[in-house]
Amino acid sequence: MATLLSQINSPVDLKKLDRQQLPQLARELRETIISTVATNGGHLGSSLGVVELTIALHRIFKTPEDMIIWDVGHQAYAHKLLTGRRDQFSTLRQANGISGFPKRTESEHDTFGVGHSSTSISAALGMAAAGDILKEKNKVVAIIGDGSLTAGLAFEGLNHAGHLKQKLVVILNDNEMSISPNVGALASFMSRKMTSDTFIRFKKETENLLSHVPGIGRDLVNLAKRAEESLKGFMTPGMLFEGFGFDYFGPLDGHNLDELTETLRNAAQINGPVLLHVITKKGKGYRPAEQDAPRFHGVGPFDSETGKVKVGKSGSAPTYTQVFSDSLVRLAQDDPRIVAITAAMAEGTGLKKFSEMYPDRFYDVGIAEQHAVTFAAGLACRGMHPVVAIYSTFMQRAYDQVVHDVCLQNLPVTFAMDRGGLVGEDGPTHHGVFDISFMRHVPNLVFAVPRDEIELQRAMKTAAAYAGPFAYRYPRGKGLGLEMPETVTELEIGRGELLTDGSDGLIIALGPMVNEAMSAAENFRKEGVSIAVMDARFVKPLDRELILELAEKVPFIVTVEENALQGGFGAAVLELLSEQGLMIPVARVGIPDQFVSQGTQTELRSQLGLTAQGLIEKIKQLRSATRLLSSNG
Amino acid sequence: MATLLSQINSPVDLKKLDRQQLPQLARELRETIISTVATNGGHLGSSLGVVELTIALHRIFKTPEDMIIWDVGHQAYAHKLLTGRRDQFSTLRQANGISGFPKRTESEHDTFGVGHSSTSISAALGMAAAGDILKEKNKVVAIIGDGSLTAGLAFEGLNHAGHLKQKLVVILNDNEMSISPNVGALASFMSRKMTSDTFIRFKKETENLLSHVPGIGRDLVNLAKRAEESLKGFMTPGMLFEGFGFDYFGPLDGHNLDELTETLRNAAQINGPVLLHVITKKGKGYRPAEQDAPRFHGVGPFDSETGKVKVGKSGSAPTYTQVFSDSLVRLAQDDPRIVAITAAMAEGTGLKKFSEMYPDRFYDVGIAEQHAVTFAAGLACRGMHPVVAIYSTFMQRAYDQVVHDVCLQNLPVTFAMDRGGLVGEDGPTHHGVFDISFMRHVPNLVFAVPRDEIELQRAMKTAAAYAGPFAYRYPRGKGLGLEMPETVTELEIGRGELLTDGSDGLIIALGPMVNEAMSAAENFRKEGVSIAVMDARFVKPLDRELILELAEKVPFIVTVEENALQGGFGAAVLELLSEQGLMIPVARVGIPDQFVSQGTQTELRSQLGLTAQGLIEKIKQLRSATRLLSSNG
Repeated sequence: MATLLSQINSPVDLKKLDRQQLPQLARELRETIISTVATNGGHLGSSLGVVELTIALHRIFKTPEDMIIWDVGHQAYAHKLLTGRRDQFSTLRQANGISGFPKRTESEHDTFGVGHSSTSISAALGMAAAGDILKEKNKVVAIIGDGSLTAGLAFEGLNHAGHLKQKLVVILNDNEMSISPNVGALASFMSRKMTSDTFIRFKKETENLLSHVPGIGRDLVNLAKRAEESLKGFMTPGMLFEGFGFDYFGPLDGHNLDELTETLRNAAQINGPVLLHVITKKGKGYRPAEQDAPRFHGVGPFDSETGKVKVGKSGSAPTYTQVFSDSLVRLAQDDPRIVAITAAMAEGTGLKKFSEMYPDRFYDVGIAEQHAVTFAAGLACRGMHPVVAIYSTFMQRAYDQVVHDVCLQNLPVTFAMDRGGLVGEDGPTHHGVFDISFMRHVPNLVFAVPRDEIELQRAMKTAAAYAGPFAYRYPRGKGLGLEMPETVTELEIGRGELLTDGSDGLIIALGPMVNEAMSAAENFRKEGVSIAVMDARFVKPLDRELILELAEKVPFIVTVEENALQGGFGAAVLELLSEQGLMIPVARVGIPDQFVSQGTQTELRSQLGLTAQGLIEKIKQLRSATRLLSSNG
Repeated sequence: MATLLSQINSPVDLKKLDRQQLPQLARELRETIISTVATNGGHLGSSLGVVELTIALHRIFKTPEDMIIWDVGHQAYAHKLLTGRRDQFSTLRQANGISGFPKRTESEHDTFGVGHSSTSISAALGMAAAGDILKEKNKVVAIIGDGSLTAGLAFEGLNHAGHLKQKLVVILNDNEMSISPNVGALASFMSRKMTSDTFIRFKKETENLLSHVPGIGRDLVNLAKRAEESLKGFMTPGMLFEGFGFDYFGPLDGHNLDELTETLRNAAQINGPVLLHVITKKGKGYRPAEQDAPRFHGVGPFDSETGKVKVGKSGSAPTYTQVFSDSLVRLAQDDPRIVAITAAMAEGTGLKKFSEMYPDRFYDVGIAEQHAVTFAAGLACRGMHPVVAIYSTFMQRAYDQVVHDVCLQNLPVTFAMDRGGLVGEDGPTHHGVFDISFMRHVPNLVFAVPRDEIELQRAMKTAAAYAGPFAYRYPRGKGLGLEMPETVTELEIGRGELLTDGSDGLIIALGPMVNEAMSAAENFRKEGVSIAVMDARFVKPLDRELILELAEKVPFIVTVEENALQGGFGAAVLELLSEQGLMIPVARVGIPDQFVSQGTQTELRSQLGLTAQGLIEKIKQLRSATRLLSSNG
């Protein structure tokens, strides 16, 4: 079947198509995206929403000389299909396949790698500024969603762009929701539903200002008075951007190819920052995604006919997110101080349930992780006990607020970090493998990593009862399917647990790696080798007593964690042993000093030795090394 | 002398004063602030600028029940003097004295501790939200400078505040500059100098919008057309805030006590977010500070009569900042790819000189560290070699951008981190003692810590020649006064240097601690004990070869760094030794797991054993321990 898409090996081919052929191409792009995501999972809604916009961009601009910068990047599937990656598109998000996000090493058309939101304006402005220095005329376009615009970084970029006056096109892709429905006053600009009395104060203010203009002050005041009457209670989306020094065009229909192309052509000619406001529909062209945008934002494999998500093989065990969701609701029932905060992730973090049961104690601040944490600090100052639920990888955005606003003041804020460890197909931008390293050194913080869903419940209860900063992290995916006890008991802070005793070696494991350690120990036990397994439970404070006691009795220690080895949990164990002058071989298993690529969680863990098998091999090595040592000694 | 100030032991006493007495009180506050800062050093200009505002706030609001939240906090001296800390004020910024910033543990009137900018709106909003839950009527006021408003965090708070509609007073303290003259499009709103054609697009936009309003569309379009004529090219500072859902009042004269008091009284009654725009003069009432605001922002001891800064005893050695400043200018001369970026710290980072010589390659992005880094990433994508100069403590704000935008993409961005280590009197919010721990685990990053000003030059040259992410950190204060060589040679990346050989022990030191280590070794040498000293030079990559070679020959190792021990440089050494199975006692000297209070750098280093003397004692302990060990063995 000679489809149009099959003829397009680069944007050059796209430009050869007749204008009338483009709607057909859009249909083909949508079909390809839907069928691929139905098989591989991925970000469906956003990519379907920008099919026409992507075609228009590649008709007008000439990548890679011109630069197209996608914000977040999960909407770049059509861009990938049009820029030479059609044949590999079926490997989307698979190990060694193409990335679900723009990636500089994947294509010269991917100008800026991304995954976290709100970076596009800053990056594009940098490229525009470089063009100015280099006296190059290449054009720079950033495409940013309305949801991403709430993040401080986007605002910082906007503010600087308006100041620098570089030639730059910013396309506001307004689908009136980001991951969750958009929040914040900015959304009012966007959705044009503003009803506030914007201009009530206009008169007084302008009078004040204008009366200082020599000579003509009075006339202007009269003009302004007239203006006030007509504008009272009315403000348009463009005014914000015009105010920031952008030329504003829009709103445009983001699915009208002719209008888009024409406006882009004009916008590209303007010398200075331009904002093009484009209205798109998330999931456009695929009814199930149009009707349930949050579910089809990021989705696992589904039946493309019905839109029904395929049930995985791993059965009915609840996810850690579900356990967090249920437990927090129960904790909040008994403790009115508990409030919950998320940053545009009410669905993803499982806080939707909390928001329905306790709407007055729930805050979705939008994509604004920094504010989420400092806002929590403010709540805590007045006796509340905020739980800030943010994915591990996005907590990176709030590192300074964790240090400066929460921990320095020793405030009772709980950090619930979902997606801790390897997240799988979303790849290197999304793995939560640094949190232990970037939080362990922060004074006053307690940091727990529960090994299963029961322990997560217990960590949560412990955090709720603790009068200081407390973090816990738990992985993406299902728990072990354990029966949940009726009553939840607290953990003793800083106490680990010896799960199996042994004298031939010791594994100190953290989080779900404890279960791999137990399997490894079981395996050795069958061979008559007794390996002790300790669940460290707390990264901070470490159970110094138990570790030291156990360390005295074994020939070697293996630590295992789903986190960077540099400065991670294993490093904490080394620090302790060194402080105590305990000389014992320690092998640390974790993420080596590199960014981890995409693949299923199972594939990645296996590659990195974060499995029972990996531990078995490591221990066998250690045993022969120490045998060698003792036979030499 | 029965001054008014001497009668004020709490804000209650302030309220007893007659209105006519307040100007006299303002004078007394200024005198006290000037004389204290002249002796102790501190932040002068900001505090002088808000004397009247502070009086007005404490006349209207009733702390601690009402909550006053100062942004950045260096303007809170009058607040401290009026809230029971008059008698301790002479200990400002001294060890065990009162803090230069609001601090919750210091006074119940210090509602929110601070030091970094732009947190006040978020924190205040959290407190307001808690008041809502608690059904408490206490009032919440945040005071934020125009400079702080450029940071994304402030915008995130503003956006959420407009959405939540909580009762909250935000005072915009507009002195038309933050630390450096303010940058960004937002500054145009503030300074009311906006000349852009804000309303040029007004017509088309409103026509588009209004034509969709059924029935009355046409009439509104006509209204809007009239409005356009009168408003063209005109936008007031209040419109932005009104747009965000705030009630806006102002601009007010920030030195007119009656007007301030009256307006605050009214603003406090409004149910919902209010923004009060107050114009103040930095340094108000002290001519030298009014005339040279940047110099009197943060200042060392000076002669209060003349305003002349007192010259320190440490002689004429240049500061590390000066060396950075000069070297970067020289590097940029030879390499047109070098561009420099700062975040409102052109003076503090020494980039002022660069900005004068290469204005087209210099960017002050305002207080916007996140943007600074992602903007740099954009520049790097087009072949530039950006140097981002940000104090270590403020780099915390850009952690995610360092990981996600620069290092993941392996882009040639250099991070020049001034004020690495203990900064002294600014205290716990400003010490740069976490950077090694929060950056060491980031893949692809090279991280150097030069031991003196010559090595700083060399590290800078090395970074400029390196095609990937490179960080170097250097301390606040003067270098060693070394004679600078004519030609600067590059460092070999990942190579340390053995400065003194020895067989009785090894110190692996980092940064300026190398000099302390040399003194300690010298001291031992006199006693016939030979301690080797290695300058590690690089935190990452470590000089594995040299460390392992030296470690084989000595009975113990001491590592020393001016950084948190958790996950720091010493931990890196432990990781290496453990990986290689090398069993040797290691003592790590650095910052223990606590926030370090204020004091002079000398005092703090001495307390923490970060001195030759501290190292000598540590080594003596180790020597007796290892002697014990070997006599037992």
